[in-house]
Amino acid sequence: VRTAVSAGSNVIVSAEESAYPWAVDDAYARDIDTLARQFGVTVVGAGVNPGFIVDALVLTLLGTTSSPTALDVSRTVDISGFGAVVLGRLGVGVSPDEFAAGVSGGQILGHAGFPQSMAIVADAQGLHIDRIDRRIDPIIATAPIDLRQMQIRSGDTAGVRQTYTAIVAGSPWFTAKFLGHVDLTGAGFEPRDEITLTGEASQMTCVLAPGIGAQAGSAAMVANSVDRVIAASPGWLTVADLPPAFFSADPATAGHRQATV
Amino acid sequence: VRTAVSAGSNVIVSAEESAYPWAVDDAYARDIDTLARQFGVTVVGAGVNPGFIVDALVLTLLGTTSSPTALDVSRTVDISGFGAVVLGRLGVGVSPDEFAAGVSGGQILGHAGFPQSMAIVADAQGLHIDRIDRRIDPIIATAPIDLRQMQIRSGDTAGVRQTYTAIVAGSPWFTAKFLGHVDLTGAGFEPRDEITLTGEASQMTCVLAPGIGAQAGSAAMVANSVDRVIAASPGWLTVADLPPAFFSADPATAGHRQATV
Repeated sequence: VRTAVSAGSNVIVSAEESAYPWAVDDAYARDIDTLARQFGVTVVGAGVNPGFIVDALVLTLLGTTSSPTALDVSRTVDISGFGAVVLGRLGVGVSPDEFAAGVSGGQILGHAGFPQSMAIVADAQGLHIDRIDRRIDPIIATAPIDLRQMQIRSGDTAGVRQTYTAIVAGSPWFTAKFLGHVDLTGAGFEPRDEITLTGEASQMTCVLAPGIGAQAGSAAMVANSVDRVIAASPGWLTVADLPPAFFSADPATAGHRQATV
Repeated sequence: VRTAVSAGSNVIVSAEESAYPWAVDDAYARDIDTLARQFGVTVVGAGVNPGFIVDALVLTLLGTTSSPTALDVSRTVDISGFGAVVLGRLGVGVSPDEFAAGVSGGQILGHAGFPQSMAIVADAQGLHIDRIDRRIDPIIATAPIDLRQMQIRSGDTAGVRQTYTAIVAGSPWFTAKFLGHVDLTGAGFEPRDEITLTGEASQMTCVLAPGIGAQAGSAAMVANSVDRVIAASPGWLTVADLPPAFFSADPATAGHRQATV
């Protein structure tokens, strides 16, 4: 990132940590932010999770509300498209004991990026997160699963269930649940993303069916972010600072006001 | 708008036409756009419809796609909160013959603003709308309905069904359906907003349940747009140009990067 920024390039990063780098390494993030302002370029982390479902879409929906008290996001995701290294980090393909040891040792993380999304939303709303409680449990294969990149034995892990709960002012404010499985429909689940906004006197649910695909969705978010990152103010921004990353059929004619509708 | 802009004020307008003023009066819109740039202020039309469901939310969802071929938005809305003047313009409280005459004469419009939303999305995507086909039909009350602001007799109109179809390159590109009723649940409907994005090989549906309330949602969108309009570039913008209008619990501390997540 530093090399690209110093060469005068705008930068889009798909790594989860880049969606809110201050939460990972505040000094580094502020340093690159300053450098980006000096060179007049923009850095942003963008993808689906983080970058869309748990942050940009939540913030977009919050526009219609006046007194949100709790946010809930629940994702059910086909993770079979990830390579063996990522599946290992997610916690897939090991015994329950190995899973527990990997979680304790920090090698098994499940899906990363929920703290970044929560920080993006908290930051945008002017809230301070006290802490984020985390829980991760394996989903065990009841029959062998043959993937292109990995063989999973019956009794080994084929998926994960995770829950992140962000605490604000001593109470749960934002809960994110993730169920990822390499044979999602075979295990009886449907790909789906669900957001619930709870207010003082009302509740609204937003359901995406099927949910956003992990690989194709992230690739689209990165590609569709090019125009908005070029147009954005300098610095290390978050998706809360940017207009939508819509697909442009023809960027050359986008933004030309039409009087003929 | 001209008086406010000339006084150096940013302006948020809730009138439907203001969401894409070039489609109503191109010369006026360009004139005010130039004036706003001279005074360094921003003008934007914002609300729920237009301003959110049929444009900003559609564009936000389009970020996850790479080859959208068709857009569909369907709204089912409780319109009982509108005043008598707006209900009359929508086509509520008249006989079927009066409804037909009102549509022909241009006094009955149904819900306005769909062409504006379609133009926002087309403009952002670099598409040119050939034309927009429109259809409006009444929904007849099967029993009297007593509203605070209006009495509806059995046999008179209690709601409308509308369909707008925008044609791009000779084919239907964007279809918007609106069902509004003053006794929505009594007539057997549920408030609901649904967006379907169809791609070359896939389809995704986004359902908001209950749908966004007409009055409360629009009020929230206008209020939550204050910060983003103050921060925006000068000129007459659309919601495609702006970041989300999220509810800020504390605008004074919003945007302060947190390193403590």
